[in-house]
Amino acid sequence: MPFDPTKMKDWQIAEEAEKTMPTPEEWIDKLGLEKDELIPYGRTPRIDFIKVMNRLKDRPDGKYIEVTAITPTPLGEGKTTTTMGIMEGLGKRGQNVGGAIRQPSGGPTMNIKGTAAGGGNALLIPMTEFSLGLTGDINDITNAHNLAMVALNARMQHEANYDDEQLAQRGLRRLDIDPKNVEMGWVIDFAAQGLRNIIIGLGGKKDGFLMQSKFGITVSSELMAILAVAKDLADLRERLKHIVVAYDRKGNPITTADLEVDGAMCAWMRNTINPTLCCTVEHQPCFVHAGPFANIAIGQSSIIADRLGLKLFDYHVTESGFAADIGFEKFWNVKCRLSGLKPNVSILVATVRALKMHGGGPTVVPGRPIPEEYTKENLALLEKGCENLVHMINVVKKSGIKPVVCINSFYTDTPAEQALVKRVAEQAGARAAVSEHWLKGGEGALELADAVMDACKEEVDFKYLYPLEMPLRQRVELIAKEVYGADGVDWAPLAEEKAKKFESDPKYADYATMMVKTHLSLSHEPTWKGVPKNWRLPIRDILVYGGAKFLCPMAGAISLMPGTSSDPAFRRIDVDVNTGKVMGLF
Amino acid sequence: MPFDPTKMKDWQIAEEAEKTMPTPEEWIDKLGLEKDELIPYGRTPRIDFIKVMNRLKDRPDGKYIEVTAITPTPLGEGKTTTTMGIMEGLGKRGQNVGGAIRQPSGGPTMNIKGTAAGGGNALLIPMTEFSLGLTGDINDITNAHNLAMVALNARMQHEANYDDEQLAQRGLRRLDIDPKNVEMGWVIDFAAQGLRNIIIGLGGKKDGFLMQSKFGITVSSELMAILAVAKDLADLRERLKHIVVAYDRKGNPITTADLEVDGAMCAWMRNTINPTLCCTVEHQPCFVHAGPFANIAIGQSSIIADRLGLKLFDYHVTESGFAADIGFEKFWNVKCRLSGLKPNVSILVATVRALKMHGGGPTVVPGRPIPEEYTKENLALLEKGCENLVHMINVVKKSGIKPVVCINSFYTDTPAEQALVKRVAEQAGARAAVSEHWLKGGEGALELADAVMDACKEEVDFKYLYPLEMPLRQRVELIAKEVYGADGVDWAPLAEEKAKKFESDPKYADYATMMVKTHLSLSHEPTWKGVPKNWRLPIRDILVYGGAKFLCPMAGAISLMPGTSSDPAFRRIDVDVNTGKVMGLF
Repeated sequence: MPFDPTKMKDWQIAEEAEKTMPTPEEWIDKLGLEKDELIPYGRTPRIDFIKVMNRLKDRPDGKYIEVTAITPTPLGEGKTTTTMGIMEGLGKRGQNVGGAIRQPSGGPTMNIKGTAAGGGNALLIPMTEFSLGLTGDINDITNAHNLAMVALNARMQHEANYDDEQLAQRGLRRLDIDPKNVEMGWVIDFAAQGLRNIIIGLGGKKDGFLMQSKFGITVSSELMAILAVAKDLADLRERLKHIVVAYDRKGNPITTADLEVDGAMCAWMRNTINPTLCCTVEHQPCFVHAGPFANIAIGQSSIIADRLGLKLFDYHVTESGFAADIGFEKFWNVKCRLSGLKPNVSILVATVRALKMHGGGPTVVPGRPIPEEYTKENLALLEKGCENLVHMINVVKKSGIKPVVCINSFYTDTPAEQALVKRVAEQAGARAAVSEHWLKGGEGALELADAVMDACKEEVDFKYLYPLEMPLRQRVELIAKEVYGADGVDWAPLAEEKAKKFESDPKYADYATMMVKTHLSLSHEPTWKGVPKNWRLPIRDILVYGGAKFLCPMAGAISLMPGTSSDPAFRRIDVDVNTGKVMGLF
Repeated sequence: MPFDPTKMKDWQIAEEAEKTMPTPEEWIDKLGLEKDELIPYGRTPRIDFIKVMNRLKDRPDGKYIEVTAITPTPLGEGKTTTTMGIMEGLGKRGQNVGGAIRQPSGGPTMNIKGTAAGGGNALLIPMTEFSLGLTGDINDITNAHNLAMVALNARMQHEANYDDEQLAQRGLRRLDIDPKNVEMGWVIDFAAQGLRNIIIGLGGKKDGFLMQSKFGITVSSELMAILAVAKDLADLRERLKHIVVAYDRKGNPITTADLEVDGAMCAWMRNTINPTLCCTVEHQPCFVHAGPFANIAIGQSSIIADRLGLKLFDYHVTESGFAADIGFEKFWNVKCRLSGLKPNVSILVATVRALKMHGGGPTVVPGRPIPEEYTKENLALLEKGCENLVHMINVVKKSGIKPVVCINSFYTDTPAEQALVKRVAEQAGARAAVSEHWLKGGEGALELADAVMDACKEEVDFKYLYPLEMPLRQRVELIAKEVYGADGVDWAPLAEEKAKKFESDPKYADYATMMVKTHLSLSHEPTWKGVPKNWRLPIRDILVYGGAKFLCPMAGAISLMPGTSSDPAFRRIDVDVNTGKVMGLF
């Protein structure tokens, strides 16, 4: 320790580190758990959320550290690597530290690449389990979600085949579901573009109800969105009642509770409230829990995992999705509001190379040599690109948090370049630290760890961007201007009409505002790097999730079902039949 | 112990027995395992098949006990109850005993009833885990199976969008899949009749390939059939290559290996080779492994679980699907031939009430009082019905096994009735024992246990019904006459044409013959009880499974996707949010 990541691949580092990974007994000891609070499960045990929270309900929470980033570029900024790195750095300083990240989806894993959280010496293990479904939460959600669709389509068939009296004999009332107004689709956790638009129920009277339907990827399910924001099992159970599956012919919503399937859905999801325990290659504990989309959901690991981590660790690190304009904004105004938890500090991750791209550096084409703007010192380009960093610092500061900028070191960075970023960050009112966790693990993250511990000594006057009383359109206007830097919002007629309805109906008063926007730019236009000026945010529609209680104003298109490419990752994956070891994932 | 099943419901007995269920440490000790051979997993650990088999490869196998039954009736014969009962009885006699049964499917569990294996004091625990997916094998199979379909439909899309040169750039050759000749469908483990016949790939050029498709229930998947007959991981991996997903436009098969998805499928299934450990309410170990259909597959737990059980236990009990004409026939001629294992004895389960129905007793209508033929002594009806029992005894004897008839006692049975069945069984050359395991657990199964131990002292001259060299049509003729009692076989033209092809192609020489026939009668006609006379078996088609290596002659219709009724079980299932306990499953 540390390993040499210039000579070893990530999976080789993982394999070495997994040899000495704590056993269940060692975790019980290390985390101060009662024996029955750890639910063993191969190399990735779960923690019994209900039992631990009951026992520790009066214990003060640890420090709450969020990790966010500048606008991502194809060069990568290393947000998850830094999440692992800060845990390792605090670990090296002798602190009781842990964290929480999202679970990856089988779709991208089988299509684009295998998967890994972090890299080098700042890596999550065990990698195979992490990549292939862990303890089955995504499967549980798939089953619970699809059971609702089974209930819906079967009910439509039975209502078509039976009269009211025959339905009453079965204890059923006619729901009169409008087949042209079904909201919910089915889910599968792969990139199955062929299932995006389908027709089901072909055949005879007992072969279901003939209708148009669709499949989304499981991680885009409303159930996954709910798992990420539920405070506990009671909250999860309550939200599962109100999922709108369709509307009746009068336009009234038909919910999972109307289908009498909500209890059984919760039964399939009963184990998902217990976060799965993984760790860094230096063996700091890290929960992997929930994997919601970052557009129609919070895009970060769960409230449950953070509540648990704050009870068990003196420092609990949690990663947000995408960049600070989306990930931090949702952490700040949605996740923290729902949990009631108050963060102590945010780490804002940046790299010299990514900032140069924001400054106008040339496009990087896969397979071609990287332009020398990125490999040689170029202070002018870097300084220009720091605008994006300063913008993000200012976004975080609006919450009352003074962020720590992590300059995630790369071997082509020059001392002058790193010094420039540091100076800009400090001038903008942030702490800043250069970190070499990829190369050196915790030893490389000591400066960052010290800055974070220092920041955690300060009181934070944490305040939301908008009060819950603020009407929807005003909230969106505020987010667009204060967070994205837009001049204002343009509402499409459909979106405005819906917004007015939601604003006037008290039913939606406690619904969270869940922005849908590209993460590749502060604006809605993915190609606009840096800090776009003189633009207005177009909102074309608003999605509603009745169980999750989200209103999602859409400033961009979203696909809930990605596609499998012509050269998918599954081609290279196999198993060693003598050992059961999976090969080719990474 | 025992509990009073006349006062306690099954789930209450289970809950009590689960309080003292062995811990992982206790199982390690009890089964003589090395510590790393038990993979902890909540209350249902897995056993590491590869490690145990490597360590114990030279240990002699224990005694191999199969449990089968007379033709089932709506009154039930209690096959699984007896499987649990004999384990408990042998346990009470101080023997090192264990067993293996199938895993139930989520489809029936959510539709018809919750689920339970056995009942009363002869019950498998833990019940909730058993009912709701255990360690996720069915989910793993769902994922592996559907990944093949993702690969197929995406490949068809890419071949439609790209020319040969563009395909070659991606390392692909044109498979030229015939969209009108796709064999494989998708799977989901619920009773989703609306997905039986579907159209997928609607939309644009990147929305998949437009084609007709279908969903089956996961437990009917060829992958489940393969898991049940694979000898080890290498065998599983090999079979996963040869699954025929479709045919090209020239009629050549396209396999999972052609799609380069077989390795990744195996990666998703890598953990399924490790059987899950449950136990009886008296804590005898029982593996739950694989849950294949009993028509297109062997319908019984796996070869892997039996291999493992025979190494770990002095007596290993395994249950076959359906009645002896189907379950035992497949155990005898397929499962044992593939495994190379030789059974010591079969237990043939019968009840007085079910035999009376075979003797011509009146139909039983749910919700109406049971006719008094079943509640009062009626030796004439019983004697007539014993024909079915005698037929099944003779079937088992053809394998060289002398069966033990288990008269599964019911409180309405009279001593004269039980004595009659016993006498008939003994006259037919079987051992016989009355057993009260439902009421009394192992204490009630001592007579049965003694008869089984006695039988296990005898040498068995085990012989298959037909040699592998025998052509397909002759095999079917033999099964129809010798096992079902038919006068002969009538081949539909399509079936005969296919049979000739398979007989002449050496590729199919080692394919197993997997009969598809109703289990509700010895014949193909479900309403014919007892021992039907003067009938011929019609074979209308033959299904082929290239990975499992099965040829399935069809003497009946099969549905690979059941339907959800108008009063499904999921309506009554819920979760206690304070404890996470599932309610309403049983």
